[in-house]
Amino acid sequence: MAVYRGNFLYTPALGQLKVVERGWLITENGLVRSLTQRQPAAAGPLTADFGDALVLPAFTDLHLHAPQLPNMGLGYSEGLGGWLERYTYPVEHRYADPGYAHQLNAALISQLRRYGSLHAVIMGSTSAAAAADLLEQYRRSGMWAYVGKMNSDYPGYGVQNEQTAPSIAETVQLAHRYGGPGRVRYAISPEFVPCCSDELMAALGQLARETGLPVHSHMSEGESDLQLVRRRFPREGCYAGVYARFGLMGSGPSVMAHCLTSPEEEIALLKQHGSFVAHCPVCSLDLAGSGLPPIRRYLNEGIPVGLGSDIAGGHTLNMMQVIVAAVQISKLVVQQKPQLSPLSEVEALYLATKGGGAFFGRVGSFEPGYSFDALVIDDRDLGQLSPLHLSPAQRLERFLYCGDDRHISRRYCAGRELTAL
Amino acid sequence: MAVYRGNFLYTPALGQLKVVERGWLITENGLVRSLTQRQPAAAGPLTADFGDALVLPAFTDLHLHAPQLPNMGLGYSEGLGGWLERYTYPVEHRYADPGYAHQLNAALISQLRRYGSLHAVIMGSTSAAAAADLLEQYRRSGMWAYVGKMNSDYPGYGVQNEQTAPSIAETVQLAHRYGGPGRVRYAISPEFVPCCSDELMAALGQLARETGLPVHSHMSEGESDLQLVRRRFPREGCYAGVYARFGLMGSGPSVMAHCLTSPEEEIALLKQHGSFVAHCPVCSLDLAGSGLPPIRRYLNEGIPVGLGSDIAGGHTLNMMQVIVAAVQISKLVVQQKPQLSPLSEVEALYLATKGGGAFFGRVGSFEPGYSFDALVIDDRDLGQLSPLHLSPAQRLERFLYCGDDRHISRRYCAGRELTAL
Repeated sequence: MAVYRGNFLYTPALGQLKVVERGWLITENGLVRSLTQRQPAAAGPLTADFGDALVLPAFTDLHLHAPQLPNMGLGYSEGLGGWLERYTYPVEHRYADPGYAHQLNAALISQLRRYGSLHAVIMGSTSAAAAADLLEQYRRSGMWAYVGKMNSDYPGYGVQNEQTAPSIAETVQLAHRYGGPGRVRYAISPEFVPCCSDELMAALGQLARETGLPVHSHMSEGESDLQLVRRRFPREGCYAGVYARFGLMGSGPSVMAHCLTSPEEEIALLKQHGSFVAHCPVCSLDLAGSGLPPIRRYLNEGIPVGLGSDIAGGHTLNMMQVIVAAVQISKLVVQQKPQLSPLSEVEALYLATKGGGAFFGRVGSFEPGYSFDALVIDDRDLGQLSPLHLSPAQRLERFLYCGDDRHISRRYCAGRELTAL
Repeated sequence: MAVYRGNFLYTPALGQLKVVERGWLITENGLVRSLTQRQPAAAGPLTADFGDALVLPAFTDLHLHAPQLPNMGLGYSEGLGGWLERYTYPVEHRYADPGYAHQLNAALISQLRRYGSLHAVIMGSTSAAAAADLLEQYRRSGMWAYVGKMNSDYPGYGVQNEQTAPSIAETVQLAHRYGGPGRVRYAISPEFVPCCSDELMAALGQLARETGLPVHSHMSEGESDLQLVRRRFPREGCYAGVYARFGLMGSGPSVMAHCLTSPEEEIALLKQHGSFVAHCPVCSLDLAGSGLPPIRRYLNEGIPVGLGSDIAGGHTLNMMQVIVAAVQISKLVVQQKPQLSPLSEVEALYLATKGGGAFFGRVGSFEPGYSFDALVIDDRDLGQLSPLHLSPAQRLERFLYCGDDRHISRRYCAGRELTAL
């Protein structure tokens, strides 16, 4: 049992912020047992008192590309072709070198920890060895991650990244090696329909059905790739139709990044299969041009939504900046679609914690039974000289807009404090 | 004479990036005398070698509100009424206390220096004493600033902030006290048409004509305030028409913040009078709803444009984030207005340096005769493990997206290194 005191803030439901000022949080075996305003009778000695700091559930980064870590902030005005050729492909290629991949994976885990993203859904390159290394390092980190080697065997954009048979064989092997329960698991990760053969998708779908492992892919990043899918699969007519046909949606948990231009039938399939949408708002701003996703619409439909940094399509791992971008984009969407209301900061925080966290299970909240994955926020240097007396909720809002990694003073995962970086 | 070596980058014109790798920059009396690839014969001993760091012209923040420093990151989803009432008015009120204003002004100067905004156009509250204090502190800082007490005597939104006669008298006094040439000067700062009486605007316009001092105000922040102006001034029909009538545009340099919804006749008047537009893209994202300004259109017209943080309408003083937001917004504008091309990172950097710097004179470039106002950027911890060999121009781009105050290792203003914060 561990006993913590502090100002605890969490979002039990979309749009709800629960604040327990100077409350008592009890954990057992790394899980939250209770969070109360008054000291529980059964509480043992205090494990840690966080004083006047804010304590939040740790963030979930629901979509990012491991090999792209060195490319953040590069090439956003290049156009897709130049971006892929000058930046994306060279680093993906280099990531096939095991020694390099090992170093890069260590840096990635360290950076995600730094920004408080203690749960992450990560796509690798086509290299199975690099994905295995990332899974191994994550197992030692104490953090949560679903990681997959990317499958990409079809020259939808002219380049074939790998052969079908080894892609399947390597994936099956990894899926069985890292398929057990736990905080770190394999995620079946087809790049996206335009770069996957029918044979590959059928095999991965079968693997998903057999293992129940999560599936992680991209969906409807713009009108042009949607047209490509429509031409190749006229009967299915959209990404979701293709994924559903091959068992890549509906077999186990699935998460689809972007969904910028999902047609009605795709929205219906996402809903039917309970697939998560990984909303990547910083990427939508950095590579603006493909449209802004109607996240409120998805939420109204009951589709589960989380937030992703999508590095290096987005330029930052800082989930506070991702939250702010989600709010900003939602306001811009309202200008185009006045029937949709904007997201509040509290709603965007929900997406970054319990919303996306649900992909991992009972993660992203301080309700009983949830994994005690928490960030302690020391915001004393923000808003100095304010004549206002700010509530914890207002301080939270300010931290989301103005905070950075320097304000995250302690990190807990599954009840254990993560050591210094 | 001082002699510097380093990788110098600057933008002599919109869209042009000049890179002098391991070049030699010579200054005399704080001004750039030459920047050359080869060591000039006349160069004395090296004053400083910046090694492999990048050296950029310091930023110009062309629009911000001093008293709003403590409100960054608060209330952006409140709606204008709640935002003004809960946040804006209380801090503006508190800023009337001289002791508090002195502390806040010191913090503001320190923060602007931290982020490399060594030139700033700053609006105060209605308090003349607080504006005078900020001008005094700026004179001791070595940095550039045009500062004004805000004039706001007309209840356009129901609240009258001050009386007309003292507003004019205090402003005349400050204008004469801080009207001389130099890096720190008074800026005549009517809040905006809806909150200024005819009598006030006439008196301030006369002052502008008599002194040639810069004028700093707001313009066309949205359709609703534009309608208010149209109803009160049907003949002038827009902000610019009113400012021009009263001599607040065209007498000396003028800078107008926002210009989100400027009608054609306003664009023509901005051009005619050479008025600067202070583009505040972070504010346009934080308070999205009033539209996105067609900055490319203004640039095509030859209207001078710079960037502003607009704290606390924007949530950050970090000019790199402001530059990135300008690029992002320009891409969103293209979706609505396909005839306008997006801004590149290099163009946005121009706006943040030489573009806005022109409001101060020969500032924001490393061309001969420009004030040596420079930032040394140590980007060694960005993009670690990159397999790519990045050019200085690529490193610059990455710094703009991913850098923060920690990457600005040294700051120079008028040839003098600014001491530690």
